[in-house]
Amino acid sequence: MEGSIAARPLRAGLPDGLAQTLADLLGDRFTRGLPEREHHGRGESYHPTRPPDAVCYALTTDEVSAIVRACAGHRVPVIPFGGGTSLEGHVAALHGGVCLDLSRMTRIAAVRADDLDATVEAGVTRQQLNAHLRDTGLFFPVDPGGESTLGGMAATRASGTNAVRYGTMKDNVVSLTAVMADGTVIRTGSRARKSSAGYDLTRLLVGSEGTLGIVTELTVRLHGIPEAVAASVCAFPSVEAAVATVVEIVQCGVPIARVELLDPVTIAAVNRHSGTALTEAPTLFMEFHGTAAGTAEQMALVGALAEGNGALGFETAADADARARLWRARHDVHYAVQALRPNGRVWSTDVCVPIASLPRCLAETRADIAGASFPITTVGHVGDGNFHLGLIVDPSSEAELAEAAALNDRLVRRAIAMDGTCTGEHGIGSGKVKFMDLEHGAAIGVMRSIKQALDPLGILNPGKVLPDEAD
Amino acid sequence: MEGSIAARPLRAGLPDGLAQTLADLLGDRFTRGLPEREHHGRGESYHPTRPPDAVCYALTTDEVSAIVRACAGHRVPVIPFGGGTSLEGHVAALHGGVCLDLSRMTRIAAVRADDLDATVEAGVTRQQLNAHLRDTGLFFPVDPGGESTLGGMAATRASGTNAVRYGTMKDNVVSLTAVMADGTVIRTGSRARKSSAGYDLTRLLVGSEGTLGIVTELTVRLHGIPEAVAASVCAFPSVEAAVATVVEIVQCGVPIARVELLDPVTIAAVNRHSGTALTEAPTLFMEFHGTAAGTAEQMALVGALAEGNGALGFETAADADARARLWRARHDVHYAVQALRPNGRVWSTDVCVPIASLPRCLAETRADIAGASFPITTVGHVGDGNFHLGLIVDPSSEAELAEAAALNDRLVRRAIAMDGTCTGEHGIGSGKVKFMDLEHGAAIGVMRSIKQALDPLGILNPGKVLPDEAD
Repeated sequence: MEGSIAARPLRAGLPDGLAQTLADLLGDRFTRGLPEREHHGRGESYHPTRPPDAVCYALTTDEVSAIVRACAGHRVPVIPFGGGTSLEGHVAALHGGVCLDLSRMTRIAAVRADDLDATVEAGVTRQQLNAHLRDTGLFFPVDPGGESTLGGMAATRASGTNAVRYGTMKDNVVSLTAVMADGTVIRTGSRARKSSAGYDLTRLLVGSEGTLGIVTELTVRLHGIPEAVAASVCAFPSVEAAVATVVEIVQCGVPIARVELLDPVTIAAVNRHSGTALTEAPTLFMEFHGTAAGTAEQMALVGALAEGNGALGFETAADADARARLWRARHDVHYAVQALRPNGRVWSTDVCVPIASLPRCLAETRADIAGASFPITTVGHVGDGNFHLGLIVDPSSEAELAEAAALNDRLVRRAIAMDGTCTGEHGIGSGKVKFMDLEHGAAIGVMRSIKQALDPLGILNPGKVLPDEAD
Repeated sequence: MEGSIAARPLRAGLPDGLAQTLADLLGDRFTRGLPEREHHGRGESYHPTRPPDAVCYALTTDEVSAIVRACAGHRVPVIPFGGGTSLEGHVAALHGGVCLDLSRMTRIAAVRADDLDATVEAGVTRQQLNAHLRDTGLFFPVDPGGESTLGGMAATRASGTNAVRYGTMKDNVVSLTAVMADGTVIRTGSRARKSSAGYDLTRLLVGSEGTLGIVTELTVRLHGIPEAVAASVCAFPSVEAAVATVVEIVQCGVPIARVELLDPVTIAAVNRHSGTALTEAPTLFMEFHGTAAGTAEQMALVGALAEGNGALGFETAADADARARLWRARHDVHYAVQALRPNGRVWSTDVCVPIASLPRCLAETRADIAGASFPITTVGHVGDGNFHLGLIVDPSSEAELAEAAALNDRLVRRAIAMDGTCTGEHGIGSGKVKFMDLEHGAAIGVMRSIKQALDPLGILNPGKVLPDEAD
């Protein structure tokens, strides 16, 4: 299958006519100021800043459509921007163009508690949504670290600590409103819990990273806050023992809500950053959802499995406050790790493998990194087979960046050889484009045909997800 | 967005050159005999038989690729065929062409109990897979009625009675091997539980009904057989009372495994067909999965909700045999209903609406059908908001078919107005193409662009899923 993406070159720089159109449309919500452009040209990882030529702040789907149509008319790239928490260079303006910031679209259009769903604009964060849901007995479970927007989370198919029980954005987005490359506004799917009516455009746009369309509104599934929630912290003599426990939990079908691995280096960083006093050993943070009796049953079973693997202790968080502190500490790991090295940047790896291969993948990886010349942390959503190394590099050191890249390269090849993926939840962006052929083979041709069909000018977030054909 | 599907006309009839190629390739697995062609031109519903020009039985992915390539060379349609259980005319050869029967591809390539997945060829049925899994402690949950193949179930995004707990084919297919319109073989995704690596081709092909590619192999998720399984039958004074109970079960977040509604006409049909002695009243069939204590808790809560809605009795199936008889009877409803009228055919409707709208949708629908001139049954996967009317029509009566079509038309418009879908699980086929514009609006243009990009000659199952542009 052939497709020639952006056969006609994209326009470099910002044509005067386009600048005028956008200024007329948006007033002071259109800007070419350098600080704002630089802020919009980087995420939270090691990728260098690549500022766009201008930034537009949209307030409505119609404005997004008008901006895209104007850019299409001038063949100028459009790069959607949410919370700026990308880890793989998704927002870098590799070919210049206009950054379309959706973070001001923060309206919660509807909460339908009886249907267990809500419709929100793309700029709403999970924190905002959950605060809004406070009195309904419902919550939205997908929880990447940071203040990500739901639009950005849909675009990268994000997940987090609850995915082992509640699934990822793929499972929790019911329907989307999106602006396509020619400005057409579509809505994907209905609010029915299931449907066999045609192609699943919702799932096609989820994870497409703004390269096929721009998500402006989402309907998401909500879940009932469980009657009982219990949390545990369990230290182990080795990473291997902790992971063996997790594999057994999954294989036994325990409906655990969260099960997170933190290695000793990470625990030390958390203790320093969050003021906790955890034992500096490989540790699982766990959470159990259900009825009071059900969570007690789950904890008893998991406690027995942990003991069988030589656990050093199985402590239960005393109350809701202790639980909240525990998960706040877990969510702040990225920042805790970053604080380990002043002026360092965290290069977060993200492989995910079938659960039975996780112990071997982790063991081989930890052997491989033993001699690294910079600090490395290991944390993982291990119930999903997904873990992150935090490579804390000096971004000004070519040698360290090269060493990190080589290490990540070996890790990704190891995971793909185990029938896993180069990214469990961070996305491809520009950082992992080079692994797409290896992971997908001939299927890349199909992805390319879809991109070519839906964005024939190649203006939507160019350089992301798909390798250039010359590669 | 524009796309002109099959701008160049498809070839009518079977060119001699193609017949020779296929005969050379397949020997006696290529046939032009009328009985086999007729068998392959119909499903299990009211749709008239539309035989293909020939039938090919493939044994391998490579053979499927060769057949598709040969047909593409002659611009002849290819219609995939599995168990022949389609309800919406999916297999009708509307433009002639070659039926590609995958039902002999029945190899179970791998069961990876430790990873909770299995890889099977497209012709494997769920019954075959579950029999094969007997000693592993695992099962595959998706269970449409009939002996459907897993390939066909993926193609129609099928579900069944377990979807309320375990999801549909969308949630239970991990990865696919598929043959695209030019014969290219692709594999979609890895076996990782989650991934953010590019466009979700798995979910794009699931539900595409053979119009974008032909599924030849699937990796599916397996689930642990729960420690305890309990089943209940509960009769109610009215359909309204039964449905009110279901809505409360879902809103309370009870993790019920199955909850099926059968109206009194259906119960009578089941009693006659399956030799049961159920009270002829609106009835819920329910199943609970978990630990012994957990299922007991669920049943106590559901029993209380049922009592609050005036249940006439809440009976528990005594043992595994009684449970098996109950669900066998439920799965045979299609045939039980068909037996209500000799020479009748069942036209099964399939709307699905958000759960809070289900009571009103059912009430308005039951009022609408009160004066129908043929028998009508109501059954439903009500935990999903999905129900089926069984319109038992005389297929030789134009008047009855017109009455059924008008009734279904009103039902579909009612469901779509409630933000529901025309089909929860049966698919679009040719039978519901006319509702696609109403349900999807501008998104149809995007679907059309994808179809045009992936099947530029329009040879894959033409006339299905998407309306002709002239419509």
